[in-house]
Amino acid sequence: MATLKDVAKETGLTVSTVSRVLNNRGYISEATRENVYRAMKKLNYQPNEVARSLSKKSTNTIGVIVPHIGHPYFAELISNIESAAYKSKYKILLFNSKEKNEKEIEYIEMCKSNRVAGVILCSGRVGVNEFTELNVPLITIERYLDQGTAAVECDNLQGGKLAAQHLISCGCRHLLHFSGVTDEEMPADERAIGFKVECDQKGISNIEIKTSELQYNTLEYHDFIEHTLRECPDTDGIFASSDLIAAQLLQVCAKMNIKVPEQMKIVGFDDVNIASLTTPRITTIHQPIKEMAEMAISLLICASEGKLVASRTTLPVTLIKRESTC
Amino acid sequence: MATLKDVAKETGLTVSTVSRVLNNRGYISEATRENVYRAMKKLNYQPNEVARSLSKKSTNTIGVIVPHIGHPYFAELISNIESAAYKSKYKILLFNSKEKNEKEIEYIEMCKSNRVAGVILCSGRVGVNEFTELNVPLITIERYLDQGTAAVECDNLQGGKLAAQHLISCGCRHLLHFSGVTDEEMPADERAIGFKVECDQKGISNIEIKTSELQYNTLEYHDFIEHTLRECPDTDGIFASSDLIAAQLLQVCAKMNIKVPEQMKIVGFDDVNIASLTTPRITTIHQPIKEMAEMAISLLICASEGKLVASRTTLPVTLIKRESTC
Repeated sequence: MATLKDVAKETGLTVSTVSRVLNNRGYISEATRENVYRAMKKLNYQPNEVARSLSKKSTNTIGVIVPHIGHPYFAELISNIESAAYKSKYKILLFNSKEKNEKEIEYIEMCKSNRVAGVILCSGRVGVNEFTELNVPLITIERYLDQGTAAVECDNLQGGKLAAQHLISCGCRHLLHFSGVTDEEMPADERAIGFKVECDQKGISNIEIKTSELQYNTLEYHDFIEHTLRECPDTDGIFASSDLIAAQLLQVCAKMNIKVPEQMKIVGFDDVNIASLTTPRITTIHQPIKEMAEMAISLLICASEGKLVASRTTLPVTLIKRESTC
Repeated sequence: MATLKDVAKETGLTVSTVSRVLNNRGYISEATRENVYRAMKKLNYQPNEVARSLSKKSTNTIGVIVPHIGHPYFAELISNIESAAYKSKYKILLFNSKEKNEKEIEYIEMCKSNRVAGVILCSGRVGVNEFTELNVPLITIERYLDQGTAAVECDNLQGGKLAAQHLISCGCRHLLHFSGVTDEEMPADERAIGFKVECDQKGISNIEIKTSELQYNTLEYHDFIEHTLRECPDTDGIFASSDLIAAQLLQVCAKMNIKVPEQMKIVGFDDVNIASLTTPRITTIHQPIKEMAEMAISLLICASEGKLVASRTTLPVTLIKRESTC
């Protein structure tokens, strides 16, 4: 079997340069990298990451746990986490917890036993006691844990305020808010608070409608939305806590012959691709998903190097005006 | 540091039972599993997968390489691959190749050096020479490689035929097909063939419009669609090779005041969640994504056990009628 020395000899580089390519350390030109890969291939040299990891405290793998890969928000988040991890020479082990306690606990154990460099935990509602003995950085996105190393959030409170301000400025006087599942305290709950504060200040009627865990798991809100709209016939503006709910609102309005935006104005949240793919397109609160993913990776790396990191980082949101309100 | 023996003593189970829990081998009741996890937690015992992997030929990790995590099709595919892998006690290392040759090659190297049990390669257009020395099963989904262990596809040819049959039976006489990127031969190309064969047999005019790699990477087709519809004003029915393109077709038709389905009938492909979230909902060809993911995992496991597996497996597709044609 070919050794590191053989690769060095084949390329004409030093062993230490070849090792730097394999370890992705320091500056390496693309030409050098390609030279090394070519030689590795020719000699069929395979560095054994597993063996090398033994001598290190951890691997260059990050465990990523999300509650719902199929949800458009998490799909975009995972994509951005993978990109940010790749740039920093990390790879990701992906786990879909489906909000189940036992699955999340099992994944935490898998992360431990695979000696991950850290864990990124996205949203989810699982109890927090499981994370106390992780011994590597635990970064949360849109979720806050006392035991977490660092939490990354978007400014949910401001998002709720922006949605209310916009709907009110468009002339809406009877507002509804379809909010999230509320068994556990989540950063996203702040959206409802910001929305209510703003409406109350301006003297605009506002009703919060909580959605259920079953709906979140199945991504199916149609019947619930239709029932709600029949119960609240005066409604002329709606803030949905996700673009996915907003898209289904558009469908129910079409079915009920309610014209959007003429008779009903709708604001979503997230700004995932679905918001740009409906007819009309959805006005929404843009979460800086790319920047949140990059921040999470950056915090994880800093923490794993023993640096002090911010325990809570909040990134700003913006209102994106599209056809569902204008 | 606690040992396996300590965990056995704490639980009252034998070392071999505890080991079976850790290795996920044989039947283990939920109560036993929980008992072991509780003891592991109490004693802060951490099995070292990294060390254990050294004694095995490979880890229980599967490398999954997709070209575009943010595309709704791949998001659903990844979600289903993760679920199927979890059921078989595997975890997934996720890589986003973005169709780039050098990134895919680097990922293959990462998979090798991490001693994955196998690789699942989804779609993508990267050259095939890189996979010859992988030494573990390589399962492809919607992509065929001579060097692959097994390929899983949906019946693309039949899908194209079903789309044509349906549009013709709805009364369409001037058909367009927005097909995929065509630099490389892909199983998805069969959609265009099936569509054309069916139209030609029935004497219905049909034009194939090829989309570009840039459009695929950015997921942005609006201007291209509008330009095409202006060039082909007689068009009364369209088959789009993805629901994502179909959703943008709906938007362009709304902008051009073309009523769907009255003046234009649209059929998509994939049956991902976006097809159910547009207004009107999209009639589409259902790919059995869940079953394709399960098949890929099952083939990978069989192949890694040295069993002979089918080199090519094609799963059936079905027409799902929704409001964009009826």
